[in-house]
Amino acid sequence: MVKRVWSTDLGRLQGETARVCGWLHRKRELKNLVFLTLRDARGLAQAVIEDQALMEFAKKLRTESVVAVEGRVFGSAEAAGGVEFRDPSIEVIAEAESPAPLDISKKEIGAHQSTILDHAALALRHPAERAKFGLSAITMASFRRFLAGEGFTEIQTPKIVGSATESGATVFKLDYFGRPAYLAQSPQLYKQTMVGVFERVFEVGPVFRAEPHATVRHLNEYVSMDAEMGFIGDHRDIMALLSELVRTMLRDLASEGRNELALLGARLPEAPEVFPIVRFKDAQEMIYRATGEDCRGENDLAPGHEKWLGEWAAKEYLSDFLFVEGYPMSKRPFYTQPCPDDPEYSNSFDLLFRGLELVTGGQRLHRYADYLAAMSKKGIDPAIFGGYLEAFRYGMPPHGGFAIGLERWLARLLELENVRETTLFPRDIHRLSP
Amino acid sequence: MVKRVWSTDLGRLQGETARVCGWLHRKRELKNLVFLTLRDARGLAQAVIEDQALMEFAKKLRTESVVAVEGRVFGSAEAAGGVEFRDPSIEVIAEAESPAPLDISKKEIGAHQSTILDHAALALRHPAERAKFGLSAITMASFRRFLAGEGFTEIQTPKIVGSATESGATVFKLDYFGRPAYLAQSPQLYKQTMVGVFERVFEVGPVFRAEPHATVRHLNEYVSMDAEMGFIGDHRDIMALLSELVRTMLRDLASEGRNELALLGARLPEAPEVFPIVRFKDAQEMIYRATGEDCRGENDLAPGHEKWLGEWAAKEYLSDFLFVEGYPMSKRPFYTQPCPDDPEYSNSFDLLFRGLELVTGGQRLHRYADYLAAMSKKGIDPAIFGGYLEAFRYGMPPHGGFAIGLERWLARLLELENVRETTLFPRDIHRLSP
Repeated sequence: MVKRVWSTDLGRLQGETARVCGWLHRKRELKNLVFLTLRDARGLAQAVIEDQALMEFAKKLRTESVVAVEGRVFGSAEAAGGVEFRDPSIEVIAEAESPAPLDISKKEIGAHQSTILDHAALALRHPAERAKFGLSAITMASFRRFLAGEGFTEIQTPKIVGSATESGATVFKLDYFGRPAYLAQSPQLYKQTMVGVFERVFEVGPVFRAEPHATVRHLNEYVSMDAEMGFIGDHRDIMALLSELVRTMLRDLASEGRNELALLGARLPEAPEVFPIVRFKDAQEMIYRATGEDCRGENDLAPGHEKWLGEWAAKEYLSDFLFVEGYPMSKRPFYTQPCPDDPEYSNSFDLLFRGLELVTGGQRLHRYADYLAAMSKKGIDPAIFGGYLEAFRYGMPPHGGFAIGLERWLARLLELENVRETTLFPRDIHRLSP
Repeated sequence: MVKRVWSTDLGRLQGETARVCGWLHRKRELKNLVFLTLRDARGLAQAVIEDQALMEFAKKLRTESVVAVEGRVFGSAEAAGGVEFRDPSIEVIAEAESPAPLDISKKEIGAHQSTILDHAALALRHPAERAKFGLSAITMASFRRFLAGEGFTEIQTPKIVGSATESGATVFKLDYFGRPAYLAQSPQLYKQTMVGVFERVFEVGPVFRAEPHATVRHLNEYVSMDAEMGFIGDHRDIMALLSELVRTMLRDLASEGRNELALLGARLPEAPEVFPIVRFKDAQEMIYRATGEDCRGENDLAPGHEKWLGEWAAKEYLSDFLFVEGYPMSKRPFYTQPCPDDPEYSNSFDLLFRGLELVTGGQRLHRYADYLAAMSKKGIDPAIFGGYLEAFRYGMPPHGGFAIGLERWLARLLELENVRETTLFPRDIHRLSP
């Protein structure tokens, strides 16, 4: 038996005998001809069937059946890769049922999103879907590689936790051998604790939010790419690290994800060497002057105002990224470091990507007494967070960090409206399977 | 201000002025001298205090306080790194409380394990603890790098699932907006589904088992390093891949984790180019002949028998790794491929590492009809796994894979009895915090 090659290798095997394995992606029956397209993990390959008996056999083949195709590779001006098989031998490895609930052989699946999500096992095989999650894999690898190069150590922290919430997000509750427990809404407390051990840490893992909203921006489980770093001056050190990380991820996507980006027709964002920064208060002032909408005094930015800021940064700085820094303390979680000159505001930031929040980060408190005061102010019982607070009782440096939602990153990169499209098997208020 | 350097850089800065930042690891007060040891993310640095006023100040410093030490670097025959500071300026960045619940300045923490786990934020700062989790990070990076090099794509699959259990393990239940949901006991069904998309996939992520056992081998949440691969001949292809992966991880640990392994006094295992393989039935026969204990006919190996096999492989093959293949079908989950020649047994395997199960893997069923038959035999309602079964309805190649428990790997590597010692913040039947 000839050794299997990838569909993408066929171009340089013209005149030789080759074997490709994969799924029957598409079948086109003409009067005296059947065209078969095979799909493997790398790409597509074409076979032309002219032999009468083989045509009868090919006509009965169902798309998505797993097949091996073996034969001589011919040059072909019409075939996508410039080569094709002609009347090859075809072995059926596993037959697919028919009809399929979705047609994944066309450029677009052309079905309702709920149908696509219901049939994820099939829909994800579509080349465009596959390309999307290929980019997701490149993103994670790039995130880790960059941070490892900067001296960050990877950690894995528990997802079942004993304390309910650190930031006001709604949490999922579970029964832990008769005791109440919760699903971690973020690795925040653990990654801070680990700054006391490794100084610089990162984690890529699932986080859980029981928010009962069914919007295009909400997922109840998503992948958070977290980093935390000790011995900083202030949040600006974190912002500098993050800018460099984002630029690195974009560079890696442009090279390693070239084919995927082309297939998806993606437009890579403008990411200048220095991302523009605007202070939260100044942003509100600007929005007021430009739009007449008075959001001054509010403690967060409305989506429409984030959008306005994104457009402003694109126009003024040719940047699809914009830092907004100095959010009001009232809107930020208890561990947030206030701005030394203006303690109603914080040393925290959001990074907007094409006018939507992509990253939240900032400097954290690092002194035990500050934690006790901050928790008391927010009405949080310090006893609940005893194990975490111990890190601060026994010496912690100034530190900060950020979290990037992998799905949001992908959605902004590919300019997708609905974040569900960026998750293999999304979890939302209505969806728990597949 | 002088720029901060790592403690490990001081050796080549003799005669120059340097600044190190970190934690006051140890303090030794003599009559006319105080020795201070500072710990940063890379190592330790020593300062000698002889100045009377500075000595008074140093004596009041509490260990684990975060400090910056700045001054001239002197050569010193006695200091660990060959250099020391003498009467440097010392700046306190964050003061620690006193007394601490643990002394992490000694070679061993010397406290009960429960005390150590209760005070993880402090205990993990001990250089030996830190070294352990440094090795854990190297392992994950090596796992991913090797598989990416072999054409595997990283995936992230949901941890909240709608179907209870695929392998009989006990699962955690949670309330999902009024509906019952469960925590994923493994990414098994999703990684198989994704073979239909990428052919080769891997995932490193948390898995959850609600097993109510309090043993040294049980964790209720752990990190599973999973891989799954399509278009295999049979399980032997998976075993070959796994052997090469294990040898690569060991090589990476030996080079990148050199310092950590030395600090922990670890003995790297013998991993020959080809790991020995024994069939399950033959293993039982051997054990019976050698020990007189008749386990023939039982459907699994007892821990004592795994231990015996591990010793046998070490003696006969100079290998700390041993594959046992062909476990009885009755003991394996429904998706297991039976052995074609002997269908009571399976195309599955365990990899023993120093006489303990480290990895479980094997070939899976790939035909839809086989799934329906297997589920019917085990009394499983196929409707529960509809989204998963769709992958097989629409064509799946022969495939297989494996899962390595990160914590077990580390425990076997470092020859630790208790798997809790290999988790930053373990979850067991009694422990839910920190």
